[in-house]
Amino acid sequence: MRYFIQLAYDGGAYHGWQAQPGSTTVQQRLEAALSMLLKQPTALVGSGRTDAGVHACQQWAHWDQPLPLSPGQQQGLVYRLNCLLPADIGIQGLYAPANPGLHARYDATRRQYRYQICRTKNPHLRGQSLLHTGPLDTQAMDEAAACLMQYTDFASVCKSGGNNQTTLCTLLRSDWHYGPGLWTYTVAANRFLRGMVRALVGTMLLVGRGRMHLDELRAAIEAKDRSRTGPAAPPEGLFLEQVAYPEGSLIRIDE
Amino acid sequence: MRYFIQLAYDGGAYHGWQAQPGSTTVQQRLEAALSMLLKQPTALVGSGRTDAGVHACQQWAHWDQPLPLSPGQQQGLVYRLNCLLPADIGIQGLYAPANPGLHARYDATRRQYRYQICRTKNPHLRGQSLLHTGPLDTQAMDEAAACLMQYTDFASVCKSGGNNQTTLCTLLRSDWHYGPGLWTYTVAANRFLRGMVRALVGTMLLVGRGRMHLDELRAAIEAKDRSRTGPAAPPEGLFLEQVAYPEGSLIRIDE
Repeated sequence: MRYFIQLAYDGGAYHGWQAQPGSTTVQQRLEAALSMLLKQPTALVGSGRTDAGVHACQQWAHWDQPLPLSPGQQQGLVYRLNCLLPADIGIQGLYAPANPGLHARYDATRRQYRYQICRTKNPHLRGQSLLHTGPLDTQAMDEAAACLMQYTDFASVCKSGGNNQTTLCTLLRSDWHYGPGLWTYTVAANRFLRGMVRALVGTMLLVGRGRMHLDELRAAIEAKDRSRTGPAAPPEGLFLEQVAYPEGSLIRIDE
Repeated sequence: MRYFIQLAYDGGAYHGWQAQPGSTTVQQRLEAALSMLLKQPTALVGSGRTDAGVHACQQWAHWDQPLPLSPGQQQGLVYRLNCLLPADIGIQGLYAPANPGLHARYDATRRQYRYQICRTKNPHLRGQSLLHTGPLDTQAMDEAAACLMQYTDFASVCKSGGNNQTTLCTLLRSDWHYGPGLWTYTVAANRFLRGMVRALVGTMLLVGRGRMHLDELRAAIEAKDRSRTGPAAPPEGLFLEQVAYPEGSLIRIDE
């Protein structure tokens, strides 16, 4: 039996999602708590990785159970997991797949990230935003965000060492929102490459500061060369905001 | 010359706003930074106190300067203060009063607080909310919030030891908002008593849990007896959200 959990985390204290020896990651913390509750070693498959320090508002993971959970286990699991986990990881729900083979990673159809930039020092968003108080040209940033939609090969914003077989992504959304004191960039795609959103934001900030023109941005993307685009924006401003599966494929079972 | 600053803070690490010997407070931190920058001992007058652990999105304070700030000092002060202050205190602007005698505390006409309750464990609002996942009767809580508007004497939600000459307050707003996963209570008044908002929230939570009926709430308020109302809700969910002065009384001078 396969089960899915939906979770959120503040990534500030973690070396990203993915389990790796010698580092504390969200996946390891979760697997330890789940293995203790279910009284068996339990390995999770996440919808995707997040880099060290990156946050998630909605991440998904699945695991396979030799025996189905009892109704009581289903109802109590989220509460009991949340009691075991530290305050920076929150489990939001337990789900069963409509199709028993649904895969957290391969069947996710759309991923959405948000990047937060504080325009004034905000103590309530420290560790959850980049502070950038200098002048930024919002019109140029809007044009840069819109022009990205015309591309499908994002090799020039892919971190080297990434394990990607292809650098093709279909962007579904790419836009800035300028709220009072807080600016956010939202980008959605079928898939993302390693380090891609932070490189996109870092590059658009160069455009916003007048250090790179739109023509240069286009040429840099077309060059498929990471050295032509901007530095990665810091991880603390980045949130994995949403991961979507085909409609009706997940059924909530803990309520 | 009198100057006003507007600021925000995460109160988690502080024993409240008000300076007191042997404890770290927001006022002390600010006075130390300001005294260093202005090269003279500088004492602040805040718009009001916040309890230990309570946050502020908008607090105001004034100080008196023997010599007016130069235009360069005016423009640079916010940035320089923010560099000196820790990440949990953010200065939002420097203002001059239209009337030179405007007083941060006595001339504030309206104060607004917000209390945040997470209905599911939210790692991004830890330290900034109360987590309460159990059932709560929103209709009863709405009625409780509305019925408070009929009273003016709030002695029964005033912490003893408070230095209040009168327990009369004119409520200007008292309502709950139920967002997905996050419930907030907003209350505004001309003035607040010590511990008042946390006692009101703690009492309304008793009502929401069915432990206190609306009639009992009314009787408890009318009894003017703190022992009849509920326990104080924890400070980490509480934000001083806004402090208002008469229109046009403050002029921003750092831009």
